[in-house]
Amino acid sequence: MNSNYKNIIENAYNKAKSLKDKGQLATYIPELANVDPSMFGVHMTKVDGSNFGIGNYLIKFSIQSIAKVLSLTMAYSILGEKLWKRIDVEPSGTKFDSLLLLETYNGIPRNPFVNSGAIVICDVLVSHLDNAKEEFLEFVRDLSGLPELTYSDKIADSEKAYGYRNSALCNFIKSFGNIKNEPAEVLDFYFDMCSLEMNCQQLSYTFTFLANGGRKLVDGKKIISKSKCKRINALMLTCGFYDESGEFAFKVGLPGKSGVGGGIVALYPNNYTIAVWSPLLNPKGNSYKGMKLLEDVTTYSELSIF
Amino acid sequence: MNSNYKNIIENAYNKAKSLKDKGQLATYIPELANVDPSMFGVHMTKVDGSNFGIGNYLIKFSIQSIAKVLSLTMAYSILGEKLWKRIDVEPSGTKFDSLLLLETYNGIPRNPFVNSGAIVICDVLVSHLDNAKEEFLEFVRDLSGLPELTYSDKIADSEKAYGYRNSALCNFIKSFGNIKNEPAEVLDFYFDMCSLEMNCQQLSYTFTFLANGGRKLVDGKKIISKSKCKRINALMLTCGFYDESGEFAFKVGLPGKSGVGGGIVALYPNNYTIAVWSPLLNPKGNSYKGMKLLEDVTTYSELSIF
Amino acid sequence: MNSNYKNIIENAYNKAKSLKDKGQLATYIPELANVDPSMFGVHMTKVDGSNFGIGNYLIKFSIQSIAKVLSLTMAYSILGEKLWKRIDVEPSGTKFDSLLLLETYNGIPRNPFVNSGAIVICDVLVSHLDNAKEEFLEFVRDLSGLPELTYSDKIADSEKAYGYRNSALCNFIKSFGNIKNEPAEVLDFYFDMCSLEMNCQQLSYTFTFLANGGRKLVDGKKIISKSKCKRINALMLTCGFYDESGEFAFKVGLPGKSGVGGGIVALYPNNYTIAVWSPLLNPKGNSYKGMKLLEDVTTYSELSIF
Amino acid sequence: MNSNYKNIIENAYNKAKSLKDKGQLATYIPELANVDPSMFGVHMTKVDGSNFGIGNYLIKFSIQSIAKVLSLTMAYSILGEKLWKRIDVEPSGTKFDSLLLLETYNGIPRNPFVNSGAIVICDVLVSHLDNAKEEFLEFVRDLSGLPELTYSDKIADSEKAYGYRNSALCNFIKSFGNIKNEPAEVLDFYFDMCSLEMNCQQLSYTFTFLANGGRKLVDGKKIISKSKCKRINALMLTCGFYDESGEFAFKVGLPGKSGVGGGIVALYPNNYTIAVWSPLLNPKGNSYKGMKLLEDVTTYSELSIF
Repeated sequence: MNSNYKNIIENAYNKAKSLKDKGQLATYIPELANVDPSMFGVHMTKVDGSNFGIGNYLIKFSIQSIAKVLSLTMAYSILGEKLWKRIDVEPSGTKFDSLLLLETYNGIPRNPFVNSGAIVICDVLVSHLDNAKEEFLEFVRDLSGLPELTYSDKIADSEKAYGYRNSALCNFIKSFGNIKNEPAEVLDFYFDMCSLEMNCQQLSYTFTFLANGGRKLVDGKKIISKSKCKRINALMLTCGFYDESGEFAFKVGLPGKSGVGGGIVALYPNNYTIAVWSPLLNPKGNSYKGMKLLEDVTTYSELSIF
Repeated sequence: MNSNYKNIIENAYNKAKSLKDKGQLATYIPELANVDPSMFGVHMTKVDGSNFGIGNYLIKFSIQSIAKVLSLTMAYSILGEKLWKRIDVEPSGTKFDSLLLLETYNGIPRNPFVNSGAIVICDVLVSHLDNAKEEFLEFVRDLSGLPELTYSDKIADSEKAYGYRNSALCNFIKSFGNIKNEPAEVLDFYFDMCSLEMNCQQLSYTFTFLANGGRKLVDGKKIISKSKCKRINALMLTCGFYDESGEFAFKVGLPGKSGVGGGIVALYPNNYTIAVWSPLLNPKGNSYKGMKLLEDVTTYSELSIF
Repeated sequence: MNSNYKNIIENAYNKAKSLKDKGQLATYIPELANVDPSMFGVHMTKVDGSNFGIGNYLIKFSIQSIAKVLSLTMAYSILGEKLWKRIDVEPSGTKFDSLLLLETYNGIPRNPFVNSGAIVICDVLVSHLDNAKEEFLEFVRDLSGLPELTYSDKIADSEKAYGYRNSALCNFIKSFGNIKNEPAEVLDFYFDMCSLEMNCQQLSYTFTFLANGGRKLVDGKKIISKSKCKRINALMLTCGFYDESGEFAFKVGLPGKSGVGGGIVALYPNNYTIAVWSPLLNPKGNSYKGMKLLEDVTTYSELSIF
Repeated sequence: MNSNYKNIIENAYNKAKSLKDKGQLATYIPELANVDPSMFGVHMTKVDGSNFGIGNYLIKFSIQSIAKVLSLTMAYSILGEKLWKRIDVEPSGTKFDSLLLLETYNGIPRNPFVNSGAIVICDVLVSHLDNAKEEFLEFVRDLSGLPELTYSDKIADSEKAYGYRNSALCNFIKSFGNIKNEPAEVLDFYFDMCSLEMNCQQLSYTFTFLANGGRKLVDGKKIISKSKCKRINALMLTCGFYDESGEFAFKVGLPGKSGVGGGIVALYPNNYTIAVWSPLLNPKGNSYKGMKLLEDVTTYSELSIF
């Protein structure tokens, strides 16, 4: 990696680090409330293989909703464009777990990244795979190069115990006929999927296929077609940050996805991926320092997709 | 322009032209219902100055909401980031003239491209300019290199006579205090602004400053800073096509803006702008053939921002 | 009037009077903010002609939305059941000036007492009368026995100057085609209609026809059929207090109508009408002390329609 | 019963019976779709003990949501006015199983008769009774004088198997903290409660306590205080027919409650109760012929509460 990027990331990291601690830990998943709020790390992986990290970039955290991009990738590669009969591709304009728009649109989630959409994606995988949990885990192990990766039972159990809102969403969609399996089975997979843990280095590496035209860096293996890869990137840009997606596109200008664990991954096509983690969230549920750092990185590098 | 682009555009044009006529003329502005529905033209202008057009690309049409990008540019350059206290930057998730979200968000429009947001932009210009109508016209004349450009009274009058929905929006925002001038004055400017007419060649040329880092092609004159230019492009990507914005980002993958006159302008930063016109609209209010043509252009050129 | 009612009213009056002043003056009509907030009066008129008042029951106040019952009566007697093609008869579940439900129901107001519904009623009267303002005034003069009654220019002008929300409603309904005349003309009548002033004695007397099967007390003149009279009473019960209608039915149990001037009129069919006035409003826009007094009156008299 | 009522009911029955069959069987509970659609019966019980029935008034049917009045009565008598911290008393303005307003009002159902409200009532009973199912059954057995009354397993099982919408509602309210027990337990009771079966004679008799100031006809036993009895009646008037409540108040003018099994019970305080059953439903989910019959009964008897 050339020194320019390093400098920009270091500067952005130090500037964001010195911010008085704003934001709050996610509390609706009890286990997430136990995280050390001072954690802050960032790691960039370039498609040329060079990479750079700073801060707590080797500490694992719960990637939560970031995993929705991976389950979408798997479902999209299986079903192709038919997938969009079950889910739309529009920004929701509302909170990540809102039921409002579902009622308006007859059980068709607005996009695959709001909770309702990610639940439908899980339903698709349950229908089309012999063992969705295992096969999805294998898929992520392959992408990440982490053969030991497992679901975190502690996180999944914590979320299951308090996941009434997601249970409401799943049953609601089922009542419209857009969930084909039993809600309990779909939710069980959903909670496991969201329980994956990675550190910033692993996370930025795992997402490189989306900055690389759909192919893995290490061996060029095609994960998804170039066209589908672009479309997933477009979805991240328009829908990746719930009702703050417009703000992220406006200020950062990169496709990305956040999770309530405080992680964010973003990418500049044909160039790099970057993963940042700070568990204190802004009122929209996105990492407070992570958003600031990424804004600085694209401002000073003058490299956004726009 | 290299022949590759020409071929791609020609092919996409011919393919879209042969589509059985789908879509409908805009009817809510009576004057727009008189347009010849068979019109179809496209024109690309590259930042290197080369350009290419095909079909009815020299016939003028009402650019309608496309002008909102230009009034936003003017207001943004005057107020800077303070502008965003009056308007948000999030996709609306609803129809272009919906009042629903205004009520939820206390009179703050979701973004500058829904009607309510564009009306607030007009209010800003009325407040900050001596003569908003004349100065905005001068601004567009300068951008377009068309010193004779004028508002179309016929279109503006037609819209004024039936503009009850926009009048409702303006009075509604005023009731929240987010319109500072009298609704009648703001609307008068709004209807004039939307009445501008250009052909595809002129329109693609006018927008080149947004593909050129905020500077005019002809003389390098700075219209808006590079950072603001990128942010306007980001807004076009996330909000430029009403509740079909996600679809356009997904399938075309370029910042763009449509108008109910059947025009669409889109741009690839540092590369080109493209304007297309076909007055038959899909159910979301965007040009049916224009959307198809642009999808083909980016699919075959493999050049989208993603 | 038998002494029992007198006692109950006196007790309820004294109890409510001693409440520490809660509530706020209406402020969105500037002229209403000038009213003496300590005013408090009540007057009952029985259908046997006996009547009784206490407190400031001879001081005039702006009856505001209470007049909507009278304009509805006039429009209903003219159009009959055809009226309900233009307006529904369902509680709105939302604030009195909400636009939300209008969008959902394509410009058909939920009932004649939300602002949108009352504006459609005005439109109906403008269409069917030679001079709606004068003929409506004559109608109310006849009902009230007050030949000198006039619109209050001061109140009407004050409301017109700040009536952006109502202007939004009227233009919005017009955009759906459910206003037939020009918004300016309809609103001019609407603001005048809401500007009428009466005292509690006059107000309770004016409404006696609704407690008397549709006929005036003084001469038995039929104002409206018995069936229509009952239906207007039903509408007052289900819709007379905006999103507090259920609460009023629940606690008071009488058909009634409130106005933001702090007046409330209620009635017990075949028995009495009662008008109360205290200008301090609760958060729902209904008279704070007025509601309390009426609750006590029906609790202690054990006479509600239930 | 005097012959006048008999005649009015007979005439209304014959008139409604001759209506060409409109409406549809409820289909969302599979077991209800098996009912003979030609069934039609009505039965009136006067508080003087006289009674009269015609048609299939001795055939049992699933009373469904009508049971919500009885569970409300039980919960209200236990908790008193504290109950209204958990549920509001306002008409919803929306469909019976809508989630929209729940989101707006933070998990507080609009009233006890929409599904969400009835589910909260079940939660209250589960919390305050040793065995909610048995004690509620005992309560209804006492009211109805039917010691053999039981829940219908066939109906309850049918509803449980397809009750995804109600499961969504219960989990959604739980996510706001307004359900205290486990959703599965609350729903199990809810589905049983809605599975009760009675014929028109039994149903009209069971409800006589609400027409009799809260006391049973047979022995004067106090079920609920007079004041609470009136309030339950007020709730039935404003909220008993979902988003057709206003229409029922307007045309029939009596407190009442409908169920998707096609039953309706209505009452005239201090006078009579009437139960009607015809399983074909109008688009709002209320019995088509039942509504017509009751409208005729109050029109011709000229006896409504208004």
